[in-house]
Amino acid sequence: MLNLHTELNTALVAAGESFAVATIVGTEGSTPHPLGTSMLIHRDGTITGSLSGGCIEGAVHAAALDALEHNLPRREHYGYSSADAFAVGLTCGGNIDVHIAPFTEHSPMHQMLETYSSFNATDPVAMIRRIDLGSSGSTLIPNPSHLSLTELAQLLIPVVGKAGSSLAATLCYSLIVSGRTGTINLAQDTGSCATDSLELLVESRLSPPRMLIFGANTFAEELLKLAPMLGYTSTLCDARSSFTLQPRFNAAHEISTQWPHLYLGAEIAAGRIDSRTVICVLTHDPKFDIPLLTLALAQRVAYLGAMGSRTSHDSRMRDLRAGSTPESALRALHSPIGLDLQAITPGEVAISIAAEIIARRSSSATGQSLKSIAGPIHGRAKPTINAPERTQHLTDIEVPSWT
Amino acid sequence: MLNLHTELNTALVAAGESFAVATIVGTEGSTPHPLGTSMLIHRDGTITGSLSGGCIEGAVHAAALDALEHNLPRREHYGYSSADAFAVGLTCGGNIDVHIAPFTEHSPMHQMLETYSSFNATDPVAMIRRIDLGSSGSTLIPNPSHLSLTELAQLLIPVVGKAGSSLAATLCYSLIVSGRTGTINLAQDTGSCATDSLELLVESRLSPPRMLIFGANTFAEELLKLAPMLGYTSTLCDARSSFTLQPRFNAAHEISTQWPHLYLGAEIAAGRIDSRTVICVLTHDPKFDIPLLTLALAQRVAYLGAMGSRTSHDSRMRDLRAGSTPESALRALHSPIGLDLQAITPGEVAISIAAEIIARRSSSATGQSLKSIAGPIHGRAKPTINAPERTQHLTDIEVPSWT
Repeated sequence: MLNLHTELNTALVAAGESFAVATIVGTEGSTPHPLGTSMLIHRDGTITGSLSGGCIEGAVHAAALDALEHNLPRREHYGYSSADAFAVGLTCGGNIDVHIAPFTEHSPMHQMLETYSSFNATDPVAMIRRIDLGSSGSTLIPNPSHLSLTELAQLLIPVVGKAGSSLAATLCYSLIVSGRTGTINLAQDTGSCATDSLELLVESRLSPPRMLIFGANTFAEELLKLAPMLGYTSTLCDARSSFTLQPRFNAAHEISTQWPHLYLGAEIAAGRIDSRTVICVLTHDPKFDIPLLTLALAQRVAYLGAMGSRTSHDSRMRDLRAGSTPESALRALHSPIGLDLQAITPGEVAISIAAEIIARRSSSATGQSLKSIAGPIHGRAKPTINAPERTQHLTDIEVPSWT
Repeated sequence: MLNLHTELNTALVAAGESFAVATIVGTEGSTPHPLGTSMLIHRDGTITGSLSGGCIEGAVHAAALDALEHNLPRREHYGYSSADAFAVGLTCGGNIDVHIAPFTEHSPMHQMLETYSSFNATDPVAMIRRIDLGSSGSTLIPNPSHLSLTELAQLLIPVVGKAGSSLAATLCYSLIVSGRTGTINLAQDTGSCATDSLELLVESRLSPPRMLIFGANTFAEELLKLAPMLGYTSTLCDARSSFTLQPRFNAAHEISTQWPHLYLGAEIAAGRIDSRTVICVLTHDPKFDIPLLTLALAQRVAYLGAMGSRTSHDSRMRDLRAGSTPESALRALHSPIGLDLQAITPGEVAISIAAEIIARRSSSATGQSLKSIAGPIHGRAKPTINAPERTQHLTDIEVPSWT
């Protein structure tokens, strides 16, 4: 439901209005929208949002009006043919499970939705909801990346009961703190012979992952353009204000004029460096590089690369070894930075760096031309937890009118 | 001298002013500006442009004032230390040869410079100049990509004499028509026992190489952002105006709403497709793909790639084989398009395509992480003639003030 925000606000202020929330709670094959996507079906028949880009909206609409009529949640299963899938820009068919919950101002979720809609649309937040039929209960967690397991278990007591809250918290925790969406099934011991299944939809949105670029030069200028394409909020840091103030770095989301290692130290202390953070050291000067890399190599980040010729690389490694950096940490350093594309211009070099950052998100990327290797184009390995949300997600509905 | 334009205009209109043109006519090692770069030294001591980002401007300045004083051309040789080179953002030192020509309104180059400065700053143009000391002579060629060898030989008669014009034309031709810069040395038979050396600086600027993207979708939207980083002028073509008119494609330099194969056919007929052209087929629909690829595969272009799953790829290859496309042409097709980065999102896929375009400019790019292989980071193989101008060229002078 985190895909909705303004839409929920509008629905909530329409006093006395009732609507149904239809949410994707299971996917199989290619689907146009990821798990957790919701749309609203109003009692007057209007729809806000989309679950499928058109293929199944009609059927969801009918089921939602029925759920509103009887004030009972429902769960539906829909399949897409390959032709339907292609019409919305996918290459093969798939299935989705949709949970449909009627909602009125007397619904148990009312308070949570009101709180959620008071947040900003990009605020870090997690939402946990019961989606097994006949149950309700939900909780909203601001700033989920700072949550402890104990705190989560406390928050889950009203949702799953005291007995199951520890187990549920353990299962939900990694999704919550890594900003991912998933469903959790757990058998619920009711004390009788019967064992009920309990199902939770866990949605979590963290602040965007960060790309820190050190060194205000032409390579940084080009790399800054690529950061948003890969889902990163970018920071450019350089000690020299005569460089950082140049308008050519305007693509940076944030610019810091500080000694690189002092800046990184402050960010670490403030808890703003995490396992999704990407660090590119383009300073190309040992007096900046060495203290910065020494500090960065002690962190668990998604990617750490440093620019330089083979000669600079060799002397850098010597300097780092002479310091206290252990050999195991040095192996994580991408130096010289980038894939071997025989890149020459700053634009080419920036793309070789971005390509390496992408490739390191998967353990099976080869860097070969796809034409020259066999096997699936993507999805050979599960993405690691360090990657930002990468579900294939069409922001626009693309129905080729010539088909 | 093609790096100067407005500056020349200004110098020329300053009636009666005399200035010297200092031009890089030889390079060795890393140099901040490529062969052919010129700067102007005015008689009052002011300088327009830069040859080195600061290291040698002082020495060039003194030599140029001396050349103006005696109204004689000079040739100077300058070396950079590694420290000098680093100060302007290079990783190692180098040498440059500089040709310094005094210029007054009575100079033989006067007419040519006036004509050149009447062009637009990005117009395709070639300039050939004698740079052996004691000689002069030059010629200016608009639209050099359409020149024939015979026409070039005619144009060179006033520059090198009738006897040498055919040989000179043969040597200059490939530089001229591929938009590259270089120097040509040829022994000149003077009829006596002495053999003089004759040297030409050949500069050629073509219209920027083109990237044609077929299929107005989210992948195209992302790839369009990368085209200028790689030096391409981009065109987006799709048959459906409801797509091509969307503002999200505003990054395209040019948009065409036409059936893809009809558009490509018209561009071929108009002579606007050449060996530097990159074609990315993202239409993902056989009724567009097959006629388009059949036509594109018959052209000599720098890169041709087509998007699709393994299944789409197999059926596409079957369809193309069933047509008249020979197996040798099919081997040039990059399908599925892109490097294997395990890319998932449209931004990642676009970067995997750009990375493949860069890698295919060199025969030795491996796509491996630079950290995991040995050997030089770039320059293992000479770039092919299909690549756009890629000389390492600092647009801004970067002198780290903290060094």
